[in-house]
Amino acid sequence: MLVQGKHYLSIWLNENDVVQIIDQTALPHQFRILNLETIDDVCHAIRSMQIRGAGLIGVTAAYGVYVAVKTMPKTIQTQEEWQAWMQECTKKLLATRPTAKNLAWALDEQYSSWYNKPHAKALIDTKKVAIKTAHDDIAYAESIGELGKEIIAGIAKKKNKIKDETAVNILTHCNAGWLAFTDYGSALSPIYTAHEAGIPVHVWVDETRPRNQGASLTAWELSEQGIMHHLIADNTGGHLMQEGLVDMVIVGADRVTRCGDVANKIGTYLKALAAYDNNIPFYVALPSSTFDFEICDGKHIPIEERDATEVEYIQGLLESTNTIEKLRICPPATKARNWAFDVTPARLITGLITQRGICKANEADILRLYPEASNR
Amino acid sequence: MLVQGKHYLSIWLNENDVVQIIDQTALPHQFRILNLETIDDVCHAIRSMQIRGAGLIGVTAAYGVYVAVKTMPKTIQTQEEWQAWMQECTKKLLATRPTAKNLAWALDEQYSSWYNKPHAKALIDTKKVAIKTAHDDIAYAESIGELGKEIIAGIAKKKNKIKDETAVNILTHCNAGWLAFTDYGSALSPIYTAHEAGIPVHVWVDETRPRNQGASLTAWELSEQGIMHHLIADNTGGHLMQEGLVDMVIVGADRVTRCGDVANKIGTYLKALAAYDNNIPFYVALPSSTFDFEICDGKHIPIEERDATEVEYIQGLLESTNTIEKLRICPPATKARNWAFDVTPARLITGLITQRGICKANEADILRLYPEASNR
Repeated sequence: MLVQGKHYLSIWLNENDVVQIIDQTALPHQFRILNLETIDDVCHAIRSMQIRGAGLIGVTAAYGVYVAVKTMPKTIQTQEEWQAWMQECTKKLLATRPTAKNLAWALDEQYSSWYNKPHAKALIDTKKVAIKTAHDDIAYAESIGELGKEIIAGIAKKKNKIKDETAVNILTHCNAGWLAFTDYGSALSPIYTAHEAGIPVHVWVDETRPRNQGASLTAWELSEQGIMHHLIADNTGGHLMQEGLVDMVIVGADRVTRCGDVANKIGTYLKALAAYDNNIPFYVALPSSTFDFEICDGKHIPIEERDATEVEYIQGLLESTNTIEKLRICPPATKARNWAFDVTPARLITGLITQRGICKANEADILRLYPEASNR
Repeated sequence: MLVQGKHYLSIWLNENDVVQIIDQTALPHQFRILNLETIDDVCHAIRSMQIRGAGLIGVTAAYGVYVAVKTMPKTIQTQEEWQAWMQECTKKLLATRPTAKNLAWALDEQYSSWYNKPHAKALIDTKKVAIKTAHDDIAYAESIGELGKEIIAGIAKKKNKIKDETAVNILTHCNAGWLAFTDYGSALSPIYTAHEAGIPVHVWVDETRPRNQGASLTAWELSEQGIMHHLIADNTGGHLMQEGLVDMVIVGADRVTRCGDVANKIGTYLKALAAYDNNIPFYVALPSSTFDFEICDGKHIPIEERDATEVEYIQGLLESTNTIEKLRICPPATKARNWAFDVTPARLITGLITQRGICKANEADILRLYPEASNR
């Protein structure tokens, strides 16, 4: 999507075969490009959330495997040693974030590109798979955009019958935009597609404490694409829904069970409850790789607890010095707890927007789109 | 309550008859005492939230009327002019915050102390009423504490049967502690009373964006009283409830209708939905002055919309310079919207803890405690 009018992806291989990313911890205040040259660079980028988001974590992990192959230590001599190196790198990558399904999925996809293969062959194959993972990620996001656009168009059609109200008001939580994928995004892709099709949309952007992906990433994406939006505190969505100021909710997902329970950014469950209470459609947009067909009950999804300082301090731009700073927001004696995700039960979800189509959040309808998972 | 071991109220008349307050915009990082010497000082303190909270807004307004009488301009000669001055000051005070019921209530209480009275008499009577308002506020908070403690004690008794779990986990939103009243508070008063009675309590403190009254005031109060607590992002409460980590919710209120709908800090509604969904008791603590017996449906409560910059910027301590600073958290092109309150429907509320007793959130049970409101 656009950054100051120029098209970017969120991750790419540059002309020197170096993996490059946009440093999302510096947005929206600074636009920095980083090189991921070692496996530690890749793990740090995922863990410190220089890159984040379901799709992008997967694509970065896929590129990470390629980086691991490329940077095999010169001391390695035997097939056993080189395979052990890859096992170790894969393990390191897997440990960076526990909740995101796409991470394990991407490492699985890469497995056969290096397992029991000579190094030279793995060098070619892991690169190929990494690039394909990124391309597929874009294609899936485009499909999700087209399918989701139809839902928005339907709401717009209904609203247009009332003269003064034309823009469709969409609430979103966290960032499931192009920065969370390789391009377009999941939750924001339908919004971009609707906007391009001339359907007027207005987005309520949940700030998304503690890391403020809404305020810093979603608001930035929408600003750069020229889409109407307002930032709101995470506390505000319920009131907006009660007041009739939200037509639909679209969020992304970090893991979705075969029965339709959705792990997504902490706070998603609260918005789903409010949407349900006010009879407002609540959609979850996701690529197939976000499904975890091994689990039915969302209670079995591991929920990452992150460092308490992410809650105790907040980052932003100090305008007087034009520097990115962190402020402490609580007394020194106060400690925080910081769970990164929650689980929204399927019963609160209107539908799942996947690249294969839209389905209800229940096992039967999910398996209608994913029959290959029936026997698992 | 205690500040570094010394007892303070949130507002008082000093030995020179000057109204003094704790500047709550500087907490928890700096402890500053301010003088309110003119009616503009008082209005500024309320509007800029140097003081805030249902009870304290009322008590400050009562003191404000006394300040108005004291600072009658010397140019005023006639009874008409002096009464016009008081009308003007009352109007100014009333306009500072639209949602808080206690503001209008306190101004009403003071009305007969100056209306159609000579200045010298009003000087005595408005002072008397202001002091009485503060004393009553404390007494009501103490009663709420005693009544609410019994609920906590009941939960503790149940939990004690399970060996490892002794502390009662209480979630609260915003600050309804002693800083929101003259002393003790509404929602926190039962917690203080339970703690003093030796019942182990642990408080989940909602940060309470955008102004962070939880992180900066509730966490500070609990730290100073030595009560176990953890700060959490506003998004977290639903997950904690799903995980069985919350035994009860207690919040304050800015206005409660005769039918039990509750206007409180934005985000309260979301927590009430989650408590209801997880079968967790949700209590609202309030003094009688917070009731608005003229309204049944909470939809008729005016909801204040505050300045968007409260969402776009966040305040905290820059530790490197030990100064209180504000950081911008969104792109320059992004604007915010900032509603300060939402309405929690009575159907989601387990009970109201008032100084007269605990009642259900419905008209019949409220009027059982407040029969004098039956004919309104």
